[in-house]
Amino acid sequence: MKKLINDPGDVLADALTGIEKARPDLRVDHENRVIYRSTPKDQGKVALISGGGSGHEPLHGGFVGRGMLDAACAGEVFTSPTPDQIVEATKVADRGAGVLHIVKNYTGDVMNFEMGAELAALETGVEVATVVVDDDVAVENSTWTAGRRGVGLTVLLEKIVGAAAEEGRDLAALTDLAKKINADGRSMGMALTSCTVPAAGKPTFDLPEDQIEMGVGIHGEPGRKRVPLAPASDIARQLVEPILADYAFGSGPAIVMLNGLGGTPLIELYLMYGEVAALLESAGVSIARNLVGDYITSLDMQGCSVTVLKADDELLRLWDAPVNTAGLRWGA
Amino acid sequence: MKKLINDPGDVLADALTGIEKARPDLRVDHENRVIYRSTPKDQGKVALISGGGSGHEPLHGGFVGRGMLDAACAGEVFTSPTPDQIVEATKVADRGAGVLHIVKNYTGDVMNFEMGAELAALETGVEVATVVVDDDVAVENSTWTAGRRGVGLTVLLEKIVGAAAEEGRDLAALTDLAKKINADGRSMGMALTSCTVPAAGKPTFDLPEDQIEMGVGIHGEPGRKRVPLAPASDIARQLVEPILADYAFGSGPAIVMLNGLGGTPLIELYLMYGEVAALLESAGVSIARNLVGDYITSLDMQGCSVTVLKADDELLRLWDAPVNTAGLRWGA
Repeated sequence: MKKLINDPGDVLADALTGIEKARPDLRVDHENRVIYRSTPKDQGKVALISGGGSGHEPLHGGFVGRGMLDAACAGEVFTSPTPDQIVEATKVADRGAGVLHIVKNYTGDVMNFEMGAELAALETGVEVATVVVDDDVAVENSTWTAGRRGVGLTVLLEKIVGAAAEEGRDLAALTDLAKKINADGRSMGMALTSCTVPAAGKPTFDLPEDQIEMGVGIHGEPGRKRVPLAPASDIARQLVEPILADYAFGSGPAIVMLNGLGGTPLIELYLMYGEVAALLESAGVSIARNLVGDYITSLDMQGCSVTVLKADDELLRLWDAPVNTAGLRWGA
Repeated sequence: MKKLINDPGDVLADALTGIEKARPDLRVDHENRVIYRSTPKDQGKVALISGGGSGHEPLHGGFVGRGMLDAACAGEVFTSPTPDQIVEATKVADRGAGVLHIVKNYTGDVMNFEMGAELAALETGVEVATVVVDDDVAVENSTWTAGRRGVGLTVLLEKIVGAAAEEGRDLAALTDLAKKINADGRSMGMALTSCTVPAAGKPTFDLPEDQIEMGVGIHGEPGRKRVPLAPASDIARQLVEPILADYAFGSGPAIVMLNGLGGTPLIELYLMYGEVAALLESAGVSIARNLVGDYITSLDMQGCSVTVLKADDELLRLWDAPVNTAGLRWGA
């Protein structure tokens, strides 16, 4: 295993030190592994928190900041954050108007966020609402999930609902918006290679040189099937078709993310975006906004995922609103 | 070789198609492989162009846009752009106030930009000035260079001089600014793994599982020496010490970039930034701004580089000015 790390047991702690040093607008509660804004939003506004296992950077800590999240709790690599972490994140973010928990649909995450919400409410009386993201069309259940997995759509949801929260919408309205986004977005991913979890020291799975994993999960869990390595245009088709088969995007505007899984360079992501955009356009989808880069990763895995979200003028307005985080930044 | 590509000979053409689709503010001259702004800057302002071999994305095409470059010409992977490409980029970018060529110090690039500048001047009478970037402290000469190589500082230079060009400074002033930045910045990189050039189909060099290449070039050319794989804190020290030994950064403000070489995930880059920042701070360097991410890459190589630029209030003001490109975006 070749990685830029110190002790494999210290990867998360050391990475949190780094992001805190890089971002003067963030603070880190190192004991509880909670990343939060050094200048909180105004009292009376709803706070957004998220979290999950580490190894998906910039998700979620890299999306804390003006225009997106108020706090994130970081579990160990590929391990759900504990209820205690979620309680601390909820408390530090709360500005008296309730807290929205944004949870990717993995069994441990859902359970711990549920417990964290209950404990936080008991301790402080804070009102917590939850949205569970389950956008991955690849598999119905997986090693880590009952139901569909929550993947790339989480990034788009955190951006858009984050913008709405800055505007001062109430908890019920933000929860509705988040649920609408989850209903209208779909994702699918694929891996060229496995990732290597630092504590394990070896690849999570074996993938022959001539095969790829179609529908892979962000922890390296199996997807739909292994298929032969193919040209990018063919891989793009295998990603886009299941998304279009699952949801009728129609001809309205859409936001599209071509996401790298951590080990794939930008030249390949640009190339894949060209293939994916052409397929979506020929299916009638009108791409109004796009993201190309590493936004929800799986450590050093080579591969990519596609996310498509049906949008409207209001969603695009919120998308364009200023954001200033490590992972997404514009207009601020 | 596992990559998200079609025919290995089409990688550049296909990636250019993708970036053009992703960025409505860019146009691509596919015949000449020149990326330029769809809305050029005002007549009477100096244009900035750069270029070089592909495989270093987002450099340079990803830095074309408001606040940075006006055009970039993309050579084949790890191959200098031809004089003809440079002429076309110069012509498309020229707004009547001269064109600054930003050239990384590689023998082929320097020669072809020199020829391109002469040809463009002959053809159209455009005034061209050139700055050659040579910030890499690792080696004095290399397989690809006479003198020091031009690496990460190019990104910082393109941002700062780009901001000054938007303000309307003349060609002489911008050339002076660019030369000052080149004089005051230093870089050093290292590789955990080789990269694989698509047309070659196999790793450029062999690096045993327990060794790293210290001072590696962005084409995989050899660095200072091979050393044993070490903890991140030790690798950081081996990168920072030669930089500090080469230039007296003093206690004034500095801009620091912790750059990923393409295959290294953000969790490791955040971690490395923590180590590098701590070392620089303990040496008295005051980090005023930073970048952490993939900005000048070497295809899928795993590894990172450090760039440090001495700054002052004026440089920081230009750094903070709005920029809107695929690779760097804020305030716009």
